[in-house]
Amino acid sequence: MAMFTVSRRLPCASTTLRSVWALRAACLRSISTSFREERDTFGPILVPSDKLWGAQTQRSLQNFDIGGDREQMPEPIIRAFGILKKCAAKVNMEYGLDPSIGKAIMQAAQEVSEGKLNDHFPLVIWQTGSGTQSNMNANEVIANRAAEILGHKRGEKFVHPNDHVNRSQSSNDTFPTVMHIAAAVEINSRFIPSLKQLHASLDSKSLEFKVIIKIGRTHTQDATPLTLGQEFSGYATQVKYGIDRIICTLPRMYQLAQGGTAVGTGLNTKKGFDVKIAAAVAEETNLPFVTAENKFEALAAHDAFVETSGALNTISASLMKIANDIRLLGSGPRCGLGELILPENEPGSSIMPGKVNPTQCEALTMVCAQVMGNHVAITVGGSNGHFELNVYKPLIASGLLRSLRLLGDASISFEKNCVRGIQANHGRISKLLHESLMLVTSLNPKIGYDNAAAVAKKAHKEGTTLKESALKLGVLASEEFDKLVVPEKMIGPSD
Amino acid sequence: MAMFTVSRRLPCASTTLRSVWALRAACLRSISTSFREERDTFGPILVPSDKLWGAQTQRSLQNFDIGGDREQMPEPIIRAFGILKKCAAKVNMEYGLDPSIGKAIMQAAQEVSEGKLNDHFPLVIWQTGSGTQSNMNANEVIANRAAEILGHKRGEKFVHPNDHVNRSQSSNDTFPTVMHIAAAVEINSRFIPSLKQLHASLDSKSLEFKVIIKIGRTHTQDATPLTLGQEFSGYATQVKYGIDRIICTLPRMYQLAQGGTAVGTGLNTKKGFDVKIAAAVAEETNLPFVTAENKFEALAAHDAFVETSGALNTISASLMKIANDIRLLGSGPRCGLGELILPENEPGSSIMPGKVNPTQCEALTMVCAQVMGNHVAITVGGSNGHFELNVYKPLIASGLLRSLRLLGDASISFEKNCVRGIQANHGRISKLLHESLMLVTSLNPKIGYDNAAAVAKKAHKEGTTLKESALKLGVLASEEFDKLVVPEKMIGPSD
Amino acid sequence: MAMFTVSRRLPCASTTLRSVWALRAACLRSISTSFREERDTFGPILVPSDKLWGAQTQRSLQNFDIGGDREQMPEPIIRAFGILKKCAAKVNMEYGLDPSIGKAIMQAAQEVSEGKLNDHFPLVIWQTGSGTQSNMNANEVIANRAAEILGHKRGEKFVHPNDHVNRSQSSNDTFPTVMHIAAAVEINSRFIPSLKQLHASLDSKSLEFKVIIKIGRTHTQDATPLTLGQEFSGYATQVKYGIDRIICTLPRMYQLAQGGTAVGTGLNTKKGFDVKIAAAVAEETNLPFVTAENKFEALAAHDAFVETSGALNTISASLMKIANDIRLLGSGPRCGLGELILPENEPGSSIMPGKVNPTQCEALTMVCAQVMGNHVAITVGGSNGHFELNVYKPLIASGLLRSLRLLGDASISFEKNCVRGIQANHGRISKLLHESLMLVTSLNPKIGYDNAAAVAKKAHKEGTTLKESALKLGVLASEEFDKLVVPEKMIGPSD
Amino acid sequence: MAMFTVSRRLPCASTTLRSVWALRAACLRSISTSFREERDTFGPILVPSDKLWGAQTQRSLQNFDIGGDREQMPEPIIRAFGILKKCAAKVNMEYGLDPSIGKAIMQAAQEVSEGKLNDHFPLVIWQTGSGTQSNMNANEVIANRAAEILGHKRGEKFVHPNDHVNRSQSSNDTFPTVMHIAAAVEINSRFIPSLKQLHASLDSKSLEFKVIIKIGRTHTQDATPLTLGQEFSGYATQVKYGIDRIICTLPRMYQLAQGGTAVGTGLNTKKGFDVKIAAAVAEETNLPFVTAENKFEALAAHDAFVETSGALNTISASLMKIANDIRLLGSGPRCGLGELILPENEPGSSIMPGKVNPTQCEALTMVCAQVMGNHVAITVGGSNGHFELNVYKPLIASGLLRSLRLLGDASISFEKNCVRGIQANHGRISKLLHESLMLVTSLNPKIGYDNAAAVAKKAHKEGTTLKESALKLGVLASEEFDKLVVPEKMIGPSD
Repeated sequence: MAMFTVSRRLPCASTTLRSVWALRAACLRSISTSFREERDTFGPILVPSDKLWGAQTQRSLQNFDIGGDREQMPEPIIRAFGILKKCAAKVNMEYGLDPSIGKAIMQAAQEVSEGKLNDHFPLVIWQTGSGTQSNMNANEVIANRAAEILGHKRGEKFVHPNDHVNRSQSSNDTFPTVMHIAAAVEINSRFIPSLKQLHASLDSKSLEFKVIIKIGRTHTQDATPLTLGQEFSGYATQVKYGIDRIICTLPRMYQLAQGGTAVGTGLNTKKGFDVKIAAAVAEETNLPFVTAENKFEALAAHDAFVETSGALNTISASLMKIANDIRLLGSGPRCGLGELILPENEPGSSIMPGKVNPTQCEALTMVCAQVMGNHVAITVGGSNGHFELNVYKPLIASGLLRSLRLLGDASISFEKNCVRGIQANHGRISKLLHESLMLVTSLNPKIGYDNAAAVAKKAHKEGTTLKESALKLGVLASEEFDKLVVPEKMIGPSD
Repeated sequence: MAMFTVSRRLPCASTTLRSVWALRAACLRSISTSFREERDTFGPILVPSDKLWGAQTQRSLQNFDIGGDREQMPEPIIRAFGILKKCAAKVNMEYGLDPSIGKAIMQAAQEVSEGKLNDHFPLVIWQTGSGTQSNMNANEVIANRAAEILGHKRGEKFVHPNDHVNRSQSSNDTFPTVMHIAAAVEINSRFIPSLKQLHASLDSKSLEFKVIIKIGRTHTQDATPLTLGQEFSGYATQVKYGIDRIICTLPRMYQLAQGGTAVGTGLNTKKGFDVKIAAAVAEETNLPFVTAENKFEALAAHDAFVETSGALNTISASLMKIANDIRLLGSGPRCGLGELILPENEPGSSIMPGKVNPTQCEALTMVCAQVMGNHVAITVGGSNGHFELNVYKPLIASGLLRSLRLLGDASISFEKNCVRGIQANHGRISKLLHESLMLVTSLNPKIGYDNAAAVAKKAHKEGTTLKESALKLGVLASEEFDKLVVPEKMIGPSD
Repeated sequence: MAMFTVSRRLPCASTTLRSVWALRAACLRSISTSFREERDTFGPILVPSDKLWGAQTQRSLQNFDIGGDREQMPEPIIRAFGILKKCAAKVNMEYGLDPSIGKAIMQAAQEVSEGKLNDHFPLVIWQTGSGTQSNMNANEVIANRAAEILGHKRGEKFVHPNDHVNRSQSSNDTFPTVMHIAAAVEINSRFIPSLKQLHASLDSKSLEFKVIIKIGRTHTQDATPLTLGQEFSGYATQVKYGIDRIICTLPRMYQLAQGGTAVGTGLNTKKGFDVKIAAAVAEETNLPFVTAENKFEALAAHDAFVETSGALNTISASLMKIANDIRLLGSGPRCGLGELILPENEPGSSIMPGKVNPTQCEALTMVCAQVMGNHVAITVGGSNGHFELNVYKPLIASGLLRSLRLLGDASISFEKNCVRGIQANHGRISKLLHESLMLVTSLNPKIGYDNAAAVAKKAHKEGTTLKESALKLGVLASEEFDKLVVPEKMIGPSD
Repeated sequence: MAMFTVSRRLPCASTTLRSVWALRAACLRSISTSFREERDTFGPILVPSDKLWGAQTQRSLQNFDIGGDREQMPEPIIRAFGILKKCAAKVNMEYGLDPSIGKAIMQAAQEVSEGKLNDHFPLVIWQTGSGTQSNMNANEVIANRAAEILGHKRGEKFVHPNDHVNRSQSSNDTFPTVMHIAAAVEINSRFIPSLKQLHASLDSKSLEFKVIIKIGRTHTQDATPLTLGQEFSGYATQVKYGIDRIICTLPRMYQLAQGGTAVGTGLNTKKGFDVKIAAAVAEETNLPFVTAENKFEALAAHDAFVETSGALNTISASLMKIANDIRLLGSGPRCGLGELILPENEPGSSIMPGKVNPTQCEALTMVCAQVMGNHVAITVGGSNGHFELNVYKPLIASGLLRSLRLLGDASISFEKNCVRGIQANHGRISKLLHESLMLVTSLNPKIGYDNAAAVAKKAHKEGTTLKESALKLGVLASEEFDKLVVPEKMIGPSD
């Protein structure tokens, strides 16, 4: 195979607005790149010599110039391809794959699963809707790398991307399989731990604030009191249920399509291949993956992703509520509610002490909005499959993975940089509580409803406290007032 | 045609959970209903004698038992069918329709357009996606009514639903046409006037509150001051642009599909029919309807509805912001921001004066959320047309009409029962403004940045006013402070 | 209390576009209506004599003229109020409520739960965001009805709406409670049975079509074969998982807020009230309701509804896929795929036999789009709660209940009027299968890859069958071809 | 300022799952990085020596570890900051900014606007909701670069990020300003040209296919004929209106917030500054920017973005319809509709000629789904502003810019790699047309409705052509049939 330098092909000086980003990027990195020829059923094509990918990857790069390198297939998908191809080689050896080739594939695939070959996965999300081209990208990279391991050259196909690496597989079952692997791994290794950290922090705040009694607010209006701990217990419960919700979706996420091949029938695989490969993936990831009960559903629909995205959507609704409350309770320092003091992580205002912008709440609520949007995108993609194949796979996969990553990271950031450091503004909380007119209800049994209402009306009209008003009206003595108006008795049901 | 009583068919005593609602409803209204036979190409079918509809309507009633009578086709669609069928008869007479029949159709259609025959339109939204059955419902009702006008009996087809009432038309062009008529009429006669009323009210509040200086809030934190009038001018501008936005969509809404017949080609119409009927509808409604430039687009897509729904979505985002601000600014009476006093329309709390729940804000923001949801439904429906026909027409039409109605009504309710009666809480506004630490920036030129910061820091730490802090620190005299700290000078750019 | 006739107040002849719909409706039904005076803390107000509601309901009617009577609070909410108020009276008797009053309340509430008093619940969804006014509507109707049962007059408050019917309750805990009761009852009594019926039907079709081999399609392109039964097994699995998904959400739906009162603390209830009332509701409904673990979460958030709506959203994605496939597989009769023959329920075309419009698919997919939209509305509402109370309750409740009703009804309609009657078009299926070029893969082992490709290429180019092409090329004999090309061997993995 | 090497701080070997990505990235690029000290009101902080950013950027990097470098602020925002800061320096010089500093700022800002300093903008979208930190990033980079231009060192603040670069500005008005600049530039320079290219291509296909008569399809069922050109004219019209729709939104996009400063009042600017800076931006970009009519609206709401996103949502609905039609019309090669031949860009199947997967349709429809999702995210963000500032700015900006980029790029890719190369499959189109039963309607006038129906029924039942059936029934002669059944006469209204 020829190896030659084609610096003339690089449109570095091109003034066209829309140059091929891949080449432009190459351009920026090295003045003259050498290329080798790769080949598929379409014929030969030039590929950068320092890249492991082959012809089909190169074609996709050129045919799908959409969005630039920010839109590359998410890394967890690449890593999951590494896991899957390793397991496939392992199982294929049981079915007759040459062991030396099989082992080399396993080694190369292991490198992919560790993220070591990320630079060789340049394709964007917006490609074939089956993810075929990313599957071929994985096959080509692993084949070339395995060949190198065995002492052969790239492009020579000593290890063949289709016949060896993709053996017993089809893009139509590998891509849904890596979708499920990637999502399940992310959920277990990053997302649930993040939510648990946030939950623990809210829960511990709930304990810390257990005895601080504050005014309640309904309809944004003053209402009967509760403790700040009770308020935070609501937040903690929301997050706890959020964890339950995501866990509820896992049984369907652990089902792998592998073994369905092109249309779900399993043509070109051997009986038992599907069960063995699911077991291998389970062993590799230490997660309870099983083979999908119905492979037709597993290729033609991605309801499991729509469902899991729905759980994230619910969690976003929860977190948006919590973050909104916290920023409003922390509003001020003088002209807001001011019940919470939020940690100050960066300059708010250079001259005004106490202006602490609730920036972590802002980042989190923005993330929540994006997750809600991704959920709609995933729903639209999930509902538009045709016949034996849903062809919105990369959209669906990338949307869910982005939501998982953002929501997990933002939960951690919010916990670490905000929740953990929240302090109660005791003075303010107490002042508001005692200024409130809502406590008047405690006087009913003693002075009667009408007198109590008169006390409250007078206080409201004249802008005084209830006590001042009550004393002025002469309906009861100062000590009596203090004995009756006890917020501590208003924070639970009576015996 | 036989006329007979079939009380035995009425499953009044049925214990099945899911009885046919139409019959159940009939059941509730009259113990024994008489029926007549109507007929279509499927054969004969019984229809309640007191109803003007025919066989195809009756079949749809029985085949689409979805959602009950709350889900009936919206009234503006029924009225628009009246307008269209009247205009069609008028134009068809020019092309040879028997004038006596034509005039009777016009009279019957006029009754439909006035809502007089609403009880004869029982079909639900969830039927054929082309709205064919509602078109046939209109044809059947008008044909039977026109026949009666001419002294003939229902069901005899002296006036024929297809040959006469539907002449030169197809469901595929009539339904999109009535969608456009209904939406354009609702927008012009109800929706824009509602927004204008709300805009005028906000604008007049902006004037009324012109000189009231208050603390500004960014990130929900205290910021530099502005006038309450300036704040309301932002709201008024949002609504003003909302009106612009909906108006921008009208040119495409005024395009009528009529004349495209089954697939957009206009087969079975005469040249010029499309232009004449658009002109007739324009004259009848006093709105500038024209024939659609491209009938293929007009049948196969409802982008105009997706677009208009997008305008409503934007308006909902605006109104949600405004209503949220107003309820938060009106929060209290003691423990909230308390800058606005909202009108009290119903008992908030029986004992706590001043607890005025912002119920109008709540109704409005709920409506906004529903409009955002309908927008997604319309988008999904709009994107899923196939070939020559989009078959999500009733969904799309009913969604937009519901959004228009709710958003218009809620705007009026909000204006009348809330905005109009909003009062500024002068004392509270002034107190917050002067307690704020933000005004310290005015001292910079006189005492320098460092001293100013020291003043603010001390005030924040000790919970005093800036003035107290400044005097204690001895950085300037009381009169100097009062001369420098003038919020009135902080509400605009300097000369 | 005065009882008098005020026909002069009825603006029957009013020409204003926006007359109060309630009065207009009253107007249409009776020329002169008599009124009685009812009273709340706001003072007296006139209420139609024939209605059981009181002052607060009447005020809401007048203050929230939004959307007309199509927008009334859904019936399942009204019925759930009946259930709750009956249980509350029962438990309150344990805590000292006068038994004669308690029993009368239970009887009146029973009538509400049976839908007998529906006409007395006129309020729309778009009211106070806590649903307070519907709670008061229930209290007022039940109080007046219970008073009548005990021989007293309406409006006299012998049975008091607040002190007796609403005893130990607050709108803030009753409305979330009825939301959960209504949703759980609908899910169990209507929705899940509907999905099960659809699942059973798809499953039985899968068996019926077990041996029919057909061409597969991926990317909408011809692919390797599968059986029609396998294809339907995918649909059946989607629906089966849908049932699992909705069931997964029930544990959180069975948690009742009752006992939390105004802000979640349970102020004004007795210890144990919450547990007892949940038990009473469980007994009354035969569903495993329990008291909510955390009442603060239960009032301030409706994550359980967002979650359940997410399950419906997933089910909608599934059903949209299934219905789309079925209409495309049934397309034709001559120029489509034509593999399925759908039942003909209404005239498709008067002259063209075989044109069967897939109207049930259309109704169902429209419903799916609406459910997706409602899901966004519910999500927006669910994420926007403030402090101790989410005030998007009626939006959230009505959205979910509408989605449940529409999706359940449409599933039944689709099953009964479409799925059940689907027939395979054997001739067409077989013709397409055998014309397909995809079967060429079976020849590989015998004649080699290159020859096989040549056969396919020639057939594609010349538009002949594979067999014709193979025979012309002389690569194998007719009997050999027939022995090798056996689709039956292509529908599963090999041994 | 100290400059020292801190390789010990780099946790390259860290085994923690969640290492700070920024440092990890640094880690990968260089084994030992040197740092310098930068300083803000929070105190000193270490910044990589080779980076131009300062203390506030560095803090944000550390406080917002959300999503990794794929989530960086979009490049068009960075470039727009370059434009804005250049214009601000220019106008500030008119108001007294030292010309040597002003010119250095202009030169540095120019470099930013050209993308030359992209590597110095590391911050992610998920930061302060006002975009303050990206504004400070721009200020810091430009200040350090300008200082270098003037011969000073980084970090010494010879040119001050706040006092010089940010002069007369606030994050609260600069960020909305760059949002509008970035969006308007992208719309004009990339998005509209992309849509125009797609429109031109569809329009030219419509002309090319003008005389090809084909079967129409409604409800996915065979219908009356039209030309393939007419079908494509519908698509072209959809795209044309899409261009109109986006253009309609521009008047509000051209309004710039600059001059509103912190809360919209323009405090700390001079009168006229707002108008001058809008003029400068207009001159710089050659787009008709003006100062916003109401600065309060311009800071507190981003309705203009919600609106523009709505236009993209509509365009997505259009493109999804078009791409869906094209893939279905191109389905086959044997078992689909097969009317269109799509260009083959990559191997579809190695053995089956003619299997051309509609990969460009798939990429485009995935993009459309994402744009619909982003629209919901933007709507949620847009509706949740509080008081004087909407703090979802980076979400809103990045969402719209991503939608613009993806939809534009995908339109070009679809045009270039699909639409342009579409060929009509003449034989197949003609075969389907003539096999269709729909043409029977042409016989009505000659042989009567009943005979025509009999002909169609017989043909349907026996699977023959209409002509065969007509001849067998003896209702007319072969030449008569050919004279009457002329699809060419069915593609428009009659004279």
